[in-house]
Amino acid sequence: MDKNYSVSTVEDVAGLCMVKGFKLGAAACDIRNKDDYNRLDLAMIVSDLPATAAGAFTTNDVKAAPVVLDMRHIDAKRKIKAIIANSGNANACTGERGFKDALDTCAYAAEKLGVESSQILVCSTGRIGEFLPMEKLKRGIDASLASLSSDDRESMNAANAILTSDTRSKTVKVEVTVGGKTFTLAGMAKGAGMIEPNMATMLAFIACDASISQSLLKESLRLAVSRTFNRITIDGDMSTNDTVLCLCNGASGFEISEGDADALEAFKEALLSVCRVLARKIVSDGEKITKVVEINVRGARDIEQAEKICRSIGNSLLVKSSWFGCDPNWGRIADSAGYARTGLVLEKLDLDYDSVPVLRGGQPLSENKAKWREIVARKTFSINLNLNLGDARETILAADLTEGYVNFNKGE
Amino acid sequence: MDKNYSVSTVEDVAGLCMVKGFKLGAAACDIRNKDDYNRLDLAMIVSDLPATAAGAFTTNDVKAAPVVLDMRHIDAKRKIKAIIANSGNANACTGERGFKDALDTCAYAAEKLGVESSQILVCSTGRIGEFLPMEKLKRGIDASLASLSSDDRESMNAANAILTSDTRSKTVKVEVTVGGKTFTLAGMAKGAGMIEPNMATMLAFIACDASISQSLLKESLRLAVSRTFNRITIDGDMSTNDTVLCLCNGASGFEISEGDADALEAFKEALLSVCRVLARKIVSDGEKITKVVEINVRGARDIEQAEKICRSIGNSLLVKSSWFGCDPNWGRIADSAGYARTGLVLEKLDLDYDSVPVLRGGQPLSENKAKWREIVARKTFSINLNLNLGDARETILAADLTEGYVNFNKGE
Repeated sequence: MDKNYSVSTVEDVAGLCMVKGFKLGAAACDIRNKDDYNRLDLAMIVSDLPATAAGAFTTNDVKAAPVVLDMRHIDAKRKIKAIIANSGNANACTGERGFKDALDTCAYAAEKLGVESSQILVCSTGRIGEFLPMEKLKRGIDASLASLSSDDRESMNAANAILTSDTRSKTVKVEVTVGGKTFTLAGMAKGAGMIEPNMATMLAFIACDASISQSLLKESLRLAVSRTFNRITIDGDMSTNDTVLCLCNGASGFEISEGDADALEAFKEALLSVCRVLARKIVSDGEKITKVVEINVRGARDIEQAEKICRSIGNSLLVKSSWFGCDPNWGRIADSAGYARTGLVLEKLDLDYDSVPVLRGGQPLSENKAKWREIVARKTFSINLNLNLGDARETILAADLTEGYVNFNKGE
Repeated sequence: MDKNYSVSTVEDVAGLCMVKGFKLGAAACDIRNKDDYNRLDLAMIVSDLPATAAGAFTTNDVKAAPVVLDMRHIDAKRKIKAIIANSGNANACTGERGFKDALDTCAYAAEKLGVESSQILVCSTGRIGEFLPMEKLKRGIDASLASLSSDDRESMNAANAILTSDTRSKTVKVEVTVGGKTFTLAGMAKGAGMIEPNMATMLAFIACDASISQSLLKESLRLAVSRTFNRITIDGDMSTNDTVLCLCNGASGFEISEGDADALEAFKEALLSVCRVLARKIVSDGEKITKVVEINVRGARDIEQAEKICRSIGNSLLVKSSWFGCDPNWGRIADSAGYARTGLVLEKLDLDYDSVPVLRGGQPLSENKAKWREIVARKTFSINLNLNLGDARETILAADLTEGYVNFNKGE
């Protein structure tokens, strides 16, 4: 089927400065209280025109102060002027004072930018249970405002400032052409590695220069997140701070509306592409991982069954340890698929490593063992299950579990 | 409140031979196909009088052949003559041939013992997806029948024969006196370590010389298992073979009936004690663990909430890694309690290490940090949460996650 639009994705770009009407700034303000003013730890994203915003947030009962505040600002349907994100301190489990700090951050930046507090979003990632060093943070806001520009350099600095235990920045740009007109999306993210090493957090910021209603943006983001960021697992731990924010400022002049099916479809595809690239980058840069494995379950009775089995496999310590050891241990995969307790029927289960058969009707084709070994020794491969019970399918990306992970996260 | 009975528990005993009318045998028959005839790998438990039996089995969708067969024999309400258990091969994911092998094992032993096939129970633990070496197994049955006795030595051999990656045998005896009469229970178990290293399995066998109806025994065992074996976690992986079996042969002349409340209560307490001791021994001997941590959640709205939070904490890789590192990382505990998504309210959460306060109303009492460190450096300690939402409580026992575990289980 021909599409009436084109979507072109480029990874590892300068970042959000490639989207019209966005400026970036960054600063090193020693949020970690380590007298380290060389490490960038504050990023600012400012839209020339206040932007329509949508967000996806952690569903943890324990939500950090900035998450609670951002949900409030977005629900109030305010047009957003800026996002301020710091690394090194999560502002989580910090009670009333933490919430006040988040409010104060917004108020401080809002005054400088000449907008209202509720037009600022804040994100924090880092240690839990410590208060933000507010004076340092405010100096960081001053410095990042002073450095604000649409140059590549500041954009790359901002993409670096949000990192914690990540080993590299994560950026992507998508250009969309519909009916001879174009608009652009770009995203940056930080990974789900433990921080300092105190928690796992993922943050992703997406900018777009088309205009769109908040309800359409919200629904498009929900869909894209559910198929990407919510389909990755490194250690199964969900953070108090996970946040995805998308700002659409309309600076390209391109308008997306329900009436224009091509434009809306193109936008959804582009947003999905941004999220997919960033999600894969997050898994690939998981702490001390050595492998990224795609788990595909098809032939399920419904999506819930497929998803439960994907997660059960992807979070099994035994399965993940065997990936690390390059061991084609299908017994552990069958075992963990079974303890998802979805009504799997072993006698109907087909399993493949990439396209090489492992099980047919629950029975191993051991003559393929040499090929299995080859595949699971690779840095990326796929595990494909057919439950032969129905038509539903699901996919997740998972990382292996390594001795390095345990060592890195054992703390003191 | 005074009890009209006494229950006395002794750990690390000879084993099931201490219960009247039970004989044990063991053999080394190279189930692993490694030409190793020094390692005991087959255990036989024989009751002089066919015994009332109940069982608790894995709820994994993928159940090993012996699990399926034992469920059938117990549901048919047959009086059980013997249990045959082998280590080194799980007879799981072995299809029709595996099921026939389990049937043949029963038939072979039944003929030797002069009973019907359905009066034999079989258990297997070890590698998944390999067929049992039936000729070796049958020679093992012959040898264990020849060695059958009520001596301490054979009983200890049997307790060793079911072990795999366990580092020590696990036994317990409980003596019960009610109204001047006595009866005895004893148990043996193998741990939830990975095997060979291919799967986690726990097996437990309990013998009792009182008589009891199958329905009372079934209900008593269900209760005891739910409060003990189902409240431990090493790595969150549930096996295809987990089995707890209890045989009551009446050889003591003691009869337990619903009409005798003291006797029934005493039996339930004794069975709970057997299971509690064995469950703790299993966690304490988990693969490459260094710590056993009791997680207590109280003040929950209902038991489901308390249990979900217990398991979320006890299965969190980040929490478990921090225990290994002796790091009093309460942020990870609060985070994992939150992502159980039960409606926890952080502002109401109290948390203690042993009896030392960590959080009150969600806020840290950091002045206690030195004491927290002392506690989490111990080999055993407790984490106590009060949700302050209701009156329900739950407890689980969990182990830490170590680099040794990952190394041990990475396989090839």
